[in-house]
Amino acid sequence: MNDLGKVKKIIIKNPLKLDCGKEISNFPLAYETYGKLNEKKDNAILVFHALTGDQFASGTNPVTNKEGWWSHALGSGKALDTEKFFVICANVIGGCLGSYGPNTIDTKTNKLLGTNFPIITINDMVNAQYNLLDFFKIEKLFAVAGGSMGGMQVLQFVSNFPNKAQVAVPIACTASHSAQNIALNELGRQAIMADGNWQNGLYAEKEKNPDKGLAVARMAAHITYLSKKGLQEKFGRKLQERDNIKFGFDADFQIESYLRYQGSVFVDRFDANSYLYITRAMDYFDLTKKFNGNLSKAFEKSKTKFFVISFTSDWLYPTSENRDIVIALNAIGADVGFVEIKSDKGHDSFLLNVPDFLNTLKNYLSSTYFNLNEKRI
Amino acid sequence: MNDLGKVKKIIIKNPLKLDCGKEISNFPLAYETYGKLNEKKDNAILVFHALTGDQFASGTNPVTNKEGWWSHALGSGKALDTEKFFVICANVIGGCLGSYGPNTIDTKTNKLLGTNFPIITINDMVNAQYNLLDFFKIEKLFAVAGGSMGGMQVLQFVSNFPNKAQVAVPIACTASHSAQNIALNELGRQAIMADGNWQNGLYAEKEKNPDKGLAVARMAAHITYLSKKGLQEKFGRKLQERDNIKFGFDADFQIESYLRYQGSVFVDRFDANSYLYITRAMDYFDLTKKFNGNLSKAFEKSKTKFFVISFTSDWLYPTSENRDIVIALNAIGADVGFVEIKSDKGHDSFLLNVPDFLNTLKNYLSSTYFNLNEKRI
Repeated sequence: MNDLGKVKKIIIKNPLKLDCGKEISNFPLAYETYGKLNEKKDNAILVFHALTGDQFASGTNPVTNKEGWWSHALGSGKALDTEKFFVICANVIGGCLGSYGPNTIDTKTNKLLGTNFPIITINDMVNAQYNLLDFFKIEKLFAVAGGSMGGMQVLQFVSNFPNKAQVAVPIACTASHSAQNIALNELGRQAIMADGNWQNGLYAEKEKNPDKGLAVARMAAHITYLSKKGLQEKFGRKLQERDNIKFGFDADFQIESYLRYQGSVFVDRFDANSYLYITRAMDYFDLTKKFNGNLSKAFEKSKTKFFVISFTSDWLYPTSENRDIVIALNAIGADVGFVEIKSDKGHDSFLLNVPDFLNTLKNYLSSTYFNLNEKRI
Repeated sequence: MNDLGKVKKIIIKNPLKLDCGKEISNFPLAYETYGKLNEKKDNAILVFHALTGDQFASGTNPVTNKEGWWSHALGSGKALDTEKFFVICANVIGGCLGSYGPNTIDTKTNKLLGTNFPIITINDMVNAQYNLLDFFKIEKLFAVAGGSMGGMQVLQFVSNFPNKAQVAVPIACTASHSAQNIALNELGRQAIMADGNWQNGLYAEKEKNPDKGLAVARMAAHITYLSKKGLQEKFGRKLQERDNIKFGFDADFQIESYLRYQGSVFVDRFDANSYLYITRAMDYFDLTKKFNGNLSKAFEKSKTKFFVISFTSDWLYPTSENRDIVIALNAIGADVGFVEIKSDKGHDSFLLNVPDFLNTLKNYLSSTYFNLNEKRI
């Protein structure tokens, strides 16, 4: 795997009771920051990453040497403007870029935890990251924001800590993981577990990773991140460096070559067990459950302003599921804005250069920060 | 595998030049018939099956002991009424229920062909099945019909043999396989090939099948056959024989258990190499290519009446792609009817008990048969 010596970490000493019943303490949480915390400490944004993201939301990821996953949205002059905001992003627990996860070494056995790592939930992830506020001595965040699984964490954060963020921006997400999305995650898990190298999750001892299974899981997920129309326009039936089909099982079509590439590069940066744990956390996410199916109750103690964003061609977390969040907030008279951005780029729109989205987010954050914190001066 | 001694076969002696360039002859084509051919031999319907179908379209499949795949549509008093019509259905070449395919024994080596089987196309499948007309001494079919890959064969049949069917009923299909559908098939193939037991397709020699990979491929495909709404209504977040989630990787949710079951039963009835070959044939299908992108030209020599059927919740072969066929037929003034059936059951609608679909198909076939063949008496 990657060299994790370079990543910043805090060690969380406070015990954290996980939803599964286990208690953890003295565990690492890897994080990164962007911009500067101002004197009043009112300009902090906590960004939550999606399934395969990490703390390196912008700039060059020093571990993978690739651009951060939210480079289009986060940086100087961008939507999450580092000239104005102090942005914190942590690797979720269960992840594989330095936070407590299946890749953590068990101090008792001196081996990687693997599937001895406890099952974690979105709630656990958020509770772990809440410690960052203490660490940075931030009384109240300006905003919490994130897309996909990051958006789920936004919702959970406000529900758990109703007065700890002025603004919440859940993007392309849901309050309750759907049957289709559970099915798609289960498909990915089964692909990993079908790989003979998986070895019930203890593959580190065998020094052979379940790369083929993980690549198949990534290919499956990648298809769901793009829209049918977007795929057709970008790839259609274009052939891969050949004039005609070759009558074989090689990658004749560009879309095949592209998917194989996506699978192959993913296994270099991601851990198969982390993929299992994080997809499980997503499937377990149902914010309505604790409130007997009434999502409004999850937010009724909060004064947080919400801004919900969805994308027209996102079939993984479609507008209808994002709108359900808006409806629940409206039902308690919450301060909520909602926009559906037109895009053919599918679920991935929140990660890509979609100007309508990026401009909307920039304008919302800057004007809201001005109204809430600067105008008063 | 299954006992194929019971299946009916014809041996096709005429050489067939495949699209890949190879010529085959003296190869078996397994078939089944339903109903009786009348004296005038004008009541025959050739039904084409989909990816994982076979010749046992109705009644009990004697090999798997399960109901035929089109039992809702085919039988006495049903849409393809065996009191009136003589229905023929063959296992496609490349299949694994008796027709020439990767499971055929190579007489030279006395081993299964495996991946020594040639790459085949939808065109090859249709050309092979055309021999059934000679075998049954049928000058002209009343109809060709089929859903999904069966619908592609319908289109190819009319294009190849413009005066050999009075009526063509392509259902839930496309004239050109989309990038998303190529991607989904490639995912299935990669899942099979990732299985260490696959052994480049020569697994029969090792007596270990790539069952895990094939099960993952089936799970992936199965998700695409159902609609998001249908899955949500049927499964939602219902738990599988437990009161609460178990914080593990077992099947907590019914949808997980269902998918695992679908994968496990599939490997008992289907061959992994057949899955590779048939998905490849689907991906290669582009009826417009031979006609420089002008689909109308594929049908301009034909007097066949068309009836195109799509389903509202089918996202694999959506109405838009079926409508493209109708548009191409309209452009040459062809006799074409089109109906989009409202259903939440996704692509699988054509296989299920969807009364609007079954009644529409029944009425169309019986009235058209009456108008074309009985009224004249």
